[in-house]
Amino acid sequence: MRPRYIILSLILILFMSLLSAQIVPDLPGYKTLKCDFHMHTVFSDGLVWPTIRVDEAIDEGLDVIAITDHLEYVPHKKYVSTDMNASFEIAKKKANNKGLICIHGAEFTRWMPPGHLNALFIQDGNKLLIDDFLPAIEEAISQGAFILWNHPGWIAHQPDKVVRWYDIHQTLVDRGWMHGIEFANDHEHYTGVLEYTNKFDLATFGNSDVHGIVLREFLQKNNHRTMTLVFASEKSEKAVKEALFAKRTIALSVDDILAGPEELIDQFVNACLKIDGYTLTNLSEIPYTFMNKDQGTYVLEPLGSLILPNVDNWEITNVWVNKNENLQLQLGQ
Amino acid sequence: MRPRYIILSLILILFMSLLSAQIVPDLPGYKTLKCDFHMHTVFSDGLVWPTIRVDEAIDEGLDVIAITDHLEYVPHKKYVSTDMNASFEIAKKKANNKGLICIHGAEFTRWMPPGHLNALFIQDGNKLLIDDFLPAIEEAISQGAFILWNHPGWIAHQPDKVVRWYDIHQTLVDRGWMHGIEFANDHEHYTGVLEYTNKFDLATFGNSDVHGIVLREFLQKNNHRTMTLVFASEKSEKAVKEALFAKRTIALSVDDILAGPEELIDQFVNACLKIDGYTLTNLSEIPYTFMNKDQGTYVLEPLGSLILPNVDNWEITNVWVNKNENLQLQLGQ
Amino acid sequence: MRPRYIILSLILILFMSLLSAQIVPDLPGYKTLKCDFHMHTVFSDGLVWPTIRVDEAIDEGLDVIAITDHLEYVPHKKYVSTDMNASFEIAKKKANNKGLICIHGAEFTRWMPPGHLNALFIQDGNKLLIDDFLPAIEEAISQGAFILWNHPGWIAHQPDKVVRWYDIHQTLVDRGWMHGIEFANDHEHYTGVLEYTNKFDLATFGNSDVHGIVLREFLQKNNHRTMTLVFASEKSEKAVKEALFAKRTIALSVDDILAGPEELIDQFVNACLKIDGYTLTNLSEIPYTFMNKDQGTYVLEPLGSLILPNVDNWEITNVWVNKNENLQLQLGQ
Amino acid sequence: MRPRYIILSLILILFMSLLSAQIVPDLPGYKTLKCDFHMHTVFSDGLVWPTIRVDEAIDEGLDVIAITDHLEYVPHKKYVSTDMNASFEIAKKKANNKGLICIHGAEFTRWMPPGHLNALFIQDGNKLLIDDFLPAIEEAISQGAFILWNHPGWIAHQPDKVVRWYDIHQTLVDRGWMHGIEFANDHEHYTGVLEYTNKFDLATFGNSDVHGIVLREFLQKNNHRTMTLVFASEKSEKAVKEALFAKRTIALSVDDILAGPEELIDQFVNACLKIDGYTLTNLSEIPYTFMNKDQGTYVLEPLGSLILPNVDNWEITNVWVNKNENLQLQLGQ
Repeated sequence: MRPRYIILSLILILFMSLLSAQIVPDLPGYKTLKCDFHMHTVFSDGLVWPTIRVDEAIDEGLDVIAITDHLEYVPHKKYVSTDMNASFEIAKKKANNKGLICIHGAEFTRWMPPGHLNALFIQDGNKLLIDDFLPAIEEAISQGAFILWNHPGWIAHQPDKVVRWYDIHQTLVDRGWMHGIEFANDHEHYTGVLEYTNKFDLATFGNSDVHGIVLREFLQKNNHRTMTLVFASEKSEKAVKEALFAKRTIALSVDDILAGPEELIDQFVNACLKIDGYTLTNLSEIPYTFMNKDQGTYVLEPLGSLILPNVDNWEITNVWVNKNENLQLQLGQ
Repeated sequence: MRPRYIILSLILILFMSLLSAQIVPDLPGYKTLKCDFHMHTVFSDGLVWPTIRVDEAIDEGLDVIAITDHLEYVPHKKYVSTDMNASFEIAKKKANNKGLICIHGAEFTRWMPPGHLNALFIQDGNKLLIDDFLPAIEEAISQGAFILWNHPGWIAHQPDKVVRWYDIHQTLVDRGWMHGIEFANDHEHYTGVLEYTNKFDLATFGNSDVHGIVLREFLQKNNHRTMTLVFASEKSEKAVKEALFAKRTIALSVDDILAGPEELIDQFVNACLKIDGYTLTNLSEIPYTFMNKDQGTYVLEPLGSLILPNVDNWEITNVWVNKNENLQLQLGQ
Repeated sequence: MRPRYIILSLILILFMSLLSAQIVPDLPGYKTLKCDFHMHTVFSDGLVWPTIRVDEAIDEGLDVIAITDHLEYVPHKKYVSTDMNASFEIAKKKANNKGLICIHGAEFTRWMPPGHLNALFIQDGNKLLIDDFLPAIEEAISQGAFILWNHPGWIAHQPDKVVRWYDIHQTLVDRGWMHGIEFANDHEHYTGVLEYTNKFDLATFGNSDVHGIVLREFLQKNNHRTMTLVFASEKSEKAVKEALFAKRTIALSVDDILAGPEELIDQFVNACLKIDGYTLTNLSEIPYTFMNKDQGTYVLEPLGSLILPNVDNWEITNVWVNKNENLQLQLGQ
Repeated sequence: MRPRYIILSLILILFMSLLSAQIVPDLPGYKTLKCDFHMHTVFSDGLVWPTIRVDEAIDEGLDVIAITDHLEYVPHKKYVSTDMNASFEIAKKKANNKGLICIHGAEFTRWMPPGHLNALFIQDGNKLLIDDFLPAIEEAISQGAFILWNHPGWIAHQPDKVVRWYDIHQTLVDRGWMHGIEFANDHEHYTGVLEYTNKFDLATFGNSDVHGIVLREFLQKNNHRTMTLVFASEKSEKAVKEALFAKRTIALSVDDILAGPEELIDQFVNACLKIDGYTLTNLSEIPYTFMNKDQGTYVLEPLGSLILPNVDNWEITNVWVNKNENLQLQLGQ
């Protein structure tokens, strides 16, 4: 009877993994890692213990998370330690040996400008508690941090939701102190971000910024949270860090909008699609929407296939490569 | 205890109706009727008894159906009567007193050109069995029929899926013998159709063309089948016929793409939306997607609300008013 | 890229099969076949074309179906042929090469007594149209038929839903002209049947008796239809027939109640369970409910596991071996 | 347009409440309140901030919760305050004006015997931190507490899962210091408890004992968590306390097993059922299973109806009134 149990277990594991994980293709030389670099716990204004963030990520099939509690905003301090390393340490211990990479992070929490910025791959969160903004960033940089500008179009920072570039952001870029921007955050995204990621060669991100429960806030209506796809040489913290500084990232919003540098995203989308004349097969679980002004829109479902009208020029309207530009798909070649 | 049962029953009825029916707003002076004018039964090449079509429509909350078995294609004739009125009569008897309007129809089934055309509101299907095409249409017209050109971009008729206008269609229009075209059919739609509905003032349709089981073919993945919204002065066969000839119809595809004449669809979409500055509330169960090239796409979920970036010019990318033109939405007024 | 497509396809096939099919274990020397020996089409009072029955069975992962249209009740005869072999021939042609065994059947449709009886494995349905009941059965027997008494507690036959044994049933058994009884039919089951299957050594059945659409009538609320598990030496019509006459069958109702001869069902349930002390693992997708009067009831979910209180004597309350007797499970051995 | 918005809102509220809340009938003179008197937060070994417990309860339509963090087991004390009133105060503040009653509780956490006991309606949790067990209970009693013995058959306390009555429990009962016992806890229940609730006239409870996330641990597979139904003269903390001391409670397990004193549960079940001869209608969302040894088991679905065989004596196998006794239902009167 043994072999049957083994086979049954294998089938169940496969079944569970299919249920929980989004299928996305790897690229030549790179593994595609599903990452969320922005989330909170009771150690700032989040509502869960850090281990819940690990359980949620494993349930959902993520490869990498960063716990990024607010540095300057700790409303639970009457009851909970303000040690800025505690939430990472608790989560890291839980994640060990479970195949989930857990990255040490923290969120600088200032009014706009400069707004909120995550420092990722830090060594000691407590040393980042410096009143002046630029010295605080400098400390993070001295710890080897990757600096990410969060939700630039968030309504609390920009009441009209329009992304704006301030002098302080130019300063950060000029000094090499800002490396990426969130295109997607929570249930929102901001195409205006792509003007700046393209202009200054910054990495593009999508992150959940979850404070409550992922099941309640994302998975009751959608298949996955907002996340960043990272193309890393292997699944290790070192390789993730290398990939981030090399800008090999694509934002994937909760509602399946992709954004990133044109060359990379073109390569990724082509790895998702099998194209045979005007017949498209989707090898991924990300849906794609094709539009031709004369022919209208056609949706290619996850793992589905589709025959398009025999017209050659299409835009993929859920894939953004610049502020006002979708990825082009050329057929009939 | 009586009152409790009554309240419980009312709640259950409401609950069931919410589950089964799509909420769509009425327009001033008109009721919005959910209609499907194209479906088959065992009396041509369909796979169900006509009463199933009635049960399915009531389950889904439709107001009007037309049974339109093929005239010239009756592959079950070895076993099933070829009386071209039978399927309507059986369905009609079942629909009586159930709040569902059942319309007598039939489908002319020819190679392209002219392709397939439905005759709706006919008196006697058997009299339509005339070999020559134009005399057959003439007989339908003499019975008072509304003539609808079906799925003009269907791959079996147009291998490249491109909609083409042939001389015979011009002839039909010139004689007043063609009154509408299907923009959406089954799981497909053809924006090319809108060039001709606009040019020749024809009504726009969406129909399921279901041969098998609606639950299996539409409702396992979507909330509703492909249908036509008809704006009628009342819920009666007479008012539906009047509305069709007056072109007060909008196509609604299975994947929530709308198409119709600009003025009518603008009025309908504005009845679906409550607009307060840049805050939109969706009073309908049809999702809407707003796109501004600088700001990207924003999805307004069924019965949801959304704050758009404070920019005034938007296109609604799931609403088509012409071959290469989406409905515009102007905010900030 | 080839191997990836192959693996992806294999995963999808596995996934689909897991979604559609109930996992049930085989027994030593026998394959467990999922069978439904009672269903209708438009050729009697059913509402679908015979090919729909084939599609539904394949969707659901069944191994064997029998089309059993009523002989004496053909309300569609005004429109549909009364050839009593037609529905089988149409279904059989569709089932060919699809891995589904399709058996030729028909339903004798008389008032109670004797009620309704299915003849399975017949040669010519038209020859069964004999007015007198016993000669009609004799004709079926001469064709090699297996005779099954349907729904003996059906409210239309027994207003108090109590199973009764009439002289005519004794006559059939005495002559060897009745070989099985339905314990479960549609959404009902009748434990009273087990008194007679045990007394006269008859096979126990569960069948859907579906007239409409399986998706609508069974699969919206349950995981599977009512069915019969047949333990056959191989998956072939011949082996199924041998197994039926050898009484190697278990009824499985839509709500997961099992019934059959004690020795066989004990063997089957033990193949479903992995027992380690008081820890039970369910290797099947059939849930089991264990009851001990002192300890209460415990449900072992499909593919789940459970630690029972350390008490040795349990009844499995969803498994019936006689009219007033559940299967016993003895632990602690 | 105003009235339409109001109606739409009312429908949505009703819809949401139907989705989230279990329908259970009131009793003459009493409202039926859905209560959970056992749950944890980060202030002991739970994994969520107290406000999450309030959000979860409101989402699920509960009327009453008690936060009952462990007194003697505070594994997060390195990071989180051990103030034994903090979790209640935080939750209470969130619950105010939201229609949810939040009760101050704490859990005595000792080895078996005596095991774990909840003190409900306490004034100051910190004063309960007394080493000796009986003085600790005495302090709770002096604060006016209701004392509840938790999960007496929990495997960590009773490796064979059998409920045992120790001298210390007799002492508590003799002094009037124990008022209820959990029949159901988390995903388990213990019929052995009913021997003691009946013998010593104690209240019967079902509680979630949730440490993680209710959505993940209960609502992915079931419709509701394990809970206690309390029959109170009004929805107020005072009335709940009065009802608990008066033993007007029924346990409802996550898998819809009910337990409580025979007279009360008989009254409740009869309020759930509309009985007309042998036709039963379920006015509640709790399913009921009827068994007669000759006729087998019949399930009455939530809000469903059922015609039983015309036999008068039935047991309701998911309703327990004593250790080895189900509630009887007598029909045909």
